[in-house]
Amino acid sequence: MINGKIDLRSDTVTVPTEEMRKAMYEAVVGDDVYGDDQTVNELEALAAEIMGKEAGLFVPSGVMSNQLALFTHVNRGEEVILPDNCHIVAHEAGAAAIIAGAQLRTVQNVGGEMPLDIIEKYIRKDPDDIHQPKTALITYENADSDGQVRSLEYMKNVRELADKYHLPIHLDGARIFNAATVLGVEAKEIAQYADSVSVCLSKGLCAPVGSVLVGSKEFIAVARRKRKIIGGGMRQVGILAAAGKIALNVMSKRLQEDHDNAKYMAEALCGVKGLEVYKERQQINMVFFRLKDYPLSSAELVDYMAKHDVIINGEDNGIMRFATHKYVTREEIDKVVDLMKQV
Amino acid sequence: MINGKIDLRSDTVTVPTEEMRKAMYEAVVGDDVYGDDQTVNELEALAAEIMGKEAGLFVPSGVMSNQLALFTHVNRGEEVILPDNCHIVAHEAGAAAIIAGAQLRTVQNVGGEMPLDIIEKYIRKDPDDIHQPKTALITYENADSDGQVRSLEYMKNVRELADKYHLPIHLDGARIFNAATVLGVEAKEIAQYADSVSVCLSKGLCAPVGSVLVGSKEFIAVARRKRKIIGGGMRQVGILAAAGKIALNVMSKRLQEDHDNAKYMAEALCGVKGLEVYKERQQINMVFFRLKDYPLSSAELVDYMAKHDVIINGEDNGIMRFATHKYVTREEIDKVVDLMKQV
Amino acid sequence: MINGKIDLRSDTVTVPTEEMRKAMYEAVVGDDVYGDDQTVNELEALAAEIMGKEAGLFVPSGVMSNQLALFTHVNRGEEVILPDNCHIVAHEAGAAAIIAGAQLRTVQNVGGEMPLDIIEKYIRKDPDDIHQPKTALITYENADSDGQVRSLEYMKNVRELADKYHLPIHLDGARIFNAATVLGVEAKEIAQYADSVSVCLSKGLCAPVGSVLVGSKEFIAVARRKRKIIGGGMRQVGILAAAGKIALNVMSKRLQEDHDNAKYMAEALCGVKGLEVYKERQQINMVFFRLKDYPLSSAELVDYMAKHDVIINGEDNGIMRFATHKYVTREEIDKVVDLMKQV
Amino acid sequence: MINGKIDLRSDTVTVPTEEMRKAMYEAVVGDDVYGDDQTVNELEALAAEIMGKEAGLFVPSGVMSNQLALFTHVNRGEEVILPDNCHIVAHEAGAAAIIAGAQLRTVQNVGGEMPLDIIEKYIRKDPDDIHQPKTALITYENADSDGQVRSLEYMKNVRELADKYHLPIHLDGARIFNAATVLGVEAKEIAQYADSVSVCLSKGLCAPVGSVLVGSKEFIAVARRKRKIIGGGMRQVGILAAAGKIALNVMSKRLQEDHDNAKYMAEALCGVKGLEVYKERQQINMVFFRLKDYPLSSAELVDYMAKHDVIINGEDNGIMRFATHKYVTREEIDKVVDLMKQV
Repeated sequence: MINGKIDLRSDTVTVPTEEMRKAMYEAVVGDDVYGDDQTVNELEALAAEIMGKEAGLFVPSGVMSNQLALFTHVNRGEEVILPDNCHIVAHEAGAAAIIAGAQLRTVQNVGGEMPLDIIEKYIRKDPDDIHQPKTALITYENADSDGQVRSLEYMKNVRELADKYHLPIHLDGARIFNAATVLGVEAKEIAQYADSVSVCLSKGLCAPVGSVLVGSKEFIAVARRKRKIIGGGMRQVGILAAAGKIALNVMSKRLQEDHDNAKYMAEALCGVKGLEVYKERQQINMVFFRLKDYPLSSAELVDYMAKHDVIINGEDNGIMRFATHKYVTREEIDKVVDLMKQV
Repeated sequence: MINGKIDLRSDTVTVPTEEMRKAMYEAVVGDDVYGDDQTVNELEALAAEIMGKEAGLFVPSGVMSNQLALFTHVNRGEEVILPDNCHIVAHEAGAAAIIAGAQLRTVQNVGGEMPLDIIEKYIRKDPDDIHQPKTALITYENADSDGQVRSLEYMKNVRELADKYHLPIHLDGARIFNAATVLGVEAKEIAQYADSVSVCLSKGLCAPVGSVLVGSKEFIAVARRKRKIIGGGMRQVGILAAAGKIALNVMSKRLQEDHDNAKYMAEALCGVKGLEVYKERQQINMVFFRLKDYPLSSAELVDYMAKHDVIINGEDNGIMRFATHKYVTREEIDKVVDLMKQV
Repeated sequence: MINGKIDLRSDTVTVPTEEMRKAMYEAVVGDDVYGDDQTVNELEALAAEIMGKEAGLFVPSGVMSNQLALFTHVNRGEEVILPDNCHIVAHEAGAAAIIAGAQLRTVQNVGGEMPLDIIEKYIRKDPDDIHQPKTALITYENADSDGQVRSLEYMKNVRELADKYHLPIHLDGARIFNAATVLGVEAKEIAQYADSVSVCLSKGLCAPVGSVLVGSKEFIAVARRKRKIIGGGMRQVGILAAAGKIALNVMSKRLQEDHDNAKYMAEALCGVKGLEVYKERQQINMVFFRLKDYPLSSAELVDYMAKHDVIINGEDNGIMRFATHKYVTREEIDKVVDLMKQV
Repeated sequence: MINGKIDLRSDTVTVPTEEMRKAMYEAVVGDDVYGDDQTVNELEALAAEIMGKEAGLFVPSGVMSNQLALFTHVNRGEEVILPDNCHIVAHEAGAAAIIAGAQLRTVQNVGGEMPLDIIEKYIRKDPDDIHQPKTALITYENADSDGQVRSLEYMKNVRELADKYHLPIHLDGARIFNAATVLGVEAKEIAQYADSVSVCLSKGLCAPVGSVLVGSKEFIAVARRKRKIIGGGMRQVGILAAAGKIALNVMSKRLQEDHDNAKYMAEALCGVKGLEVYKERQQINMVFFRLKDYPLSSAELVDYMAKHDVIINGEDNGIMRFATHKYVTREEIDKVVDLMKQV
């Protein structure tokens, strides 16, 4: 429960834990624009270490982390190859065309992955042809917001393809710890296949605000300058970084619980008449289903649940998503499923 | 022959005819930035009439015509749905991200067409969701630079889809007269399914320079202002418009000859050992083939032909393209095929 | 003292007070991207009320507040008239050309003000002339970072000029409470002459992070959407807003102390040999002076002070600036002046 | 007379001469996008040679020439120092913010010149300060569209200042031959103080369309690529280049006549009651005056003249401008002055 309600809209709704609140209360802070905030410096170093990179940069949102990566990797008018359903394409408000000025080349997902042959076909081979923009970046998510996890082998294959054409890779690791939990590896095993990674401190990790962009020292130095341009330079932001450190050190290890709860919920929803549950997508903390012969429409279901203090999102392209997180217990899941049965 | 050589690289290489040169010599001109160039005004009105639109705007290139259409239809950060291999994506140097600031959503072609269900899936449905850019435009080519012609029925279907979501359509009609010739209809039968059309005066029509963008009066008034921004406002450009009028009035009717010659060349190339000719693509003035077991590589073939005064392009993603046009005769085609056999 | 040092670089270095830390610890938070963070909503409403505007929007930095104002008021390629030394020109990393795509028309300050006749000369009068961008905005600071305060009369005059040409005004009110303190009026007396105002919670007000952009409901609704594009949408950011409320309610009333201390410091520095103190600029919490015949260069002075745990910035275009704030006492000022005398 | 009218609006209204029309008729052309147009290649080499630079690039307008220079010299968000009344600021539709994404720092002219101390003040000195954009370019006109000519000494001084800070200079030489005529030097004496120069072939030189941008080989190679992005790559444009060669070789030497005619007209207009003629500005082919106690308003004068087949522009910020050129004779000037007297 959060503020007296069961909130299944997303894991972004998680509020800071008591431990985080205490850490924020006590945080030693300074002016981070001058590089003087010790807690921010510690967070950035910690994130870099966990991801196996040289340096990190704290930013106020996942959108800014991804867009800053594009703005840093890609010159204006150059091309980015990425899945048609990834967060940068689907949910970042067209920012790539505005901030980085990047040309997107979207690839239709097949089973959650960009086919390697399409990636290779889309890579520009002739840098001297003035008709063609240069390919500047390949980017994808792991785990993605459709609940899928990319395998280590797939990531290795994309890396080899990128190396063949001397291209960098940016990984949107908003849920990299969910992916690491599913794959049973350290996050850096995933991060090794990318030049830069966006790491979210919020979502399942419960920090109130922020992401860390990690990469090489040179990359982060340029990104730091560009962060100023888009207004992401903050002052005594060690307050937030203090919670971020706990997110990385402590909360990143608790995600199996969310995944188990999601599986439990998916099983239970299979028992609700009129739903079609996408069990094959069941890898992380998200349950996907469709209202097939259900008595309520998506909008009606949202209203009905709201009356019972359960907050859900409506369907997106016909598909409903329930997310589990630290503030959703098995008892609450039972209550939600019961509500759906009693319609 | 052009300047003593057989040039098969593209129909863009065509030079103005004697009739065009005379018309340019005699053209009445004025300062078109002030709207005073009578010949330009005539050309713009003529293009609009032929395409069944209200107004036209002369621009110095096909790239500018397309980019001006994007710049006028699309607000920065909004989305454009278009084929992954179309000219705007493939050959306009990333301009869409720079000038219009548009986010591209590229659709994989299936048999030369964007599948209607993918188009519909990509259209944004919730304008109030601040995570999502708005869809602002659908655009495609007819004929396309892969030599394919879209059917009237397909265009009608895309139009209905666009209307359902209140979206405009821009048609890249760089080779609209080739398409009209293949479909056996007036160009305006094709143009009716789009809100704006880029019409090229060069290519098979032999004018030295320029395209005309056509659309509604309001659209063209805005495009005229934006043309100034990107440096496309020219002065006594009636010189070029004089050739453009002949391109539209006279040359647009001669393209069957180029298509017949391309078919003739395709047949003949089937007789060359080691080539795989894509006969199913054979609709307009372009012949596509692959060097399968041919004794020369693509680069070697380019050099070999150059020594015999035949100019060709190297392969693009493994595929060779020969284009026919007014300055390629059957005798010259025979010579080219002989050369390829004698390797 | 902050972290054991006397920090005179800027009032941006201020750290949150104990009262703020407690408020942050106890803050009720929600997901602000969904509009669910009660503390953020309270802060935005409070800022709007204090400034006499309809609505407010919390953002992570003053740069973002200003740039979001430009991005919302100005279409790409339109013109902004503003002082050549204001924060947007001098210290926002060229962002106006990148995010809003605005053309700046910088006006040389005369005695801290843009002359009204130059403003009027720069305003575009002919919207139908396609050679000319439209003027879209006038913007200036009060107080400015040179320590000057604009009079109510001057602001009224600029407002009348703007109204004559139907132009909006954005006020960079990073230090609007300093200006209000000097003018002896409520902040809304200043804000009334602008359509939108950036209000900083940090600086003299001591909140750790953030600004609030205020304006009409329609303006803020568009700005909220654009905030998402540049990555300024944050999640449980009520943590920071809790400190912001105290900044507005409590700390905005304490600035006379900083101003008095700055005057005290200016007087004292007049007693240091080799300095030229700009006493005519002495209005807010900043002291400006020049090293005229001082034994140390600017860089040497920075190093010397650092050894004595006093942090200062080097000169900018030949001018040194010391800022006072909550964490600089009279005793500390005496110590600083003594250090400068003992060189 | 042009098309039966006396046209004093600008020297941009000049139409091609008979010699130019013949040259265009006979021009050898090729596909310039492939680098195959011999006449274009000759024109670009000729312009480079006359300006003392390594290479040239033909573009369809003066706006494109200037904007391409900005797009090539300046990275997005970097700063350009330039006069507040120059063509790039005043008459290029805000393009600098759209295409190059440059931040303009406009300098108020004093007697037609940017004061050197203001230029130096505006140059950014600290490239490591992330708050500040970098200064990337100084640019100005010679002659400017206010009819003023910069002295060789002034240009030398700006060059030295630029060299001190390692900055490039772009010269808008739309009327460089007018300046050279006034200064009594070869155009390259002027061009030597700039890294790149826009040279207009139209205006007093009478070519129908086009400018040439000249600079170093490396600079022009990048500009050529960027010209493609903004749609300035044209095909058999040797047609226009043929006229351009005559403009440079022949017409650049005839401007003294236009200047003498302008002086003659200025003298004559002094005899018209109610006009104030700016004789101190009388350097090139433009006459500036104000309607002080004249019986007609600016708009009425435009209409009155139009009835007598004389085309003029209305006032701009209160000032009228008449331009002389090849198609304005002394008899026509007498007729115009008589008309103004007979009101």
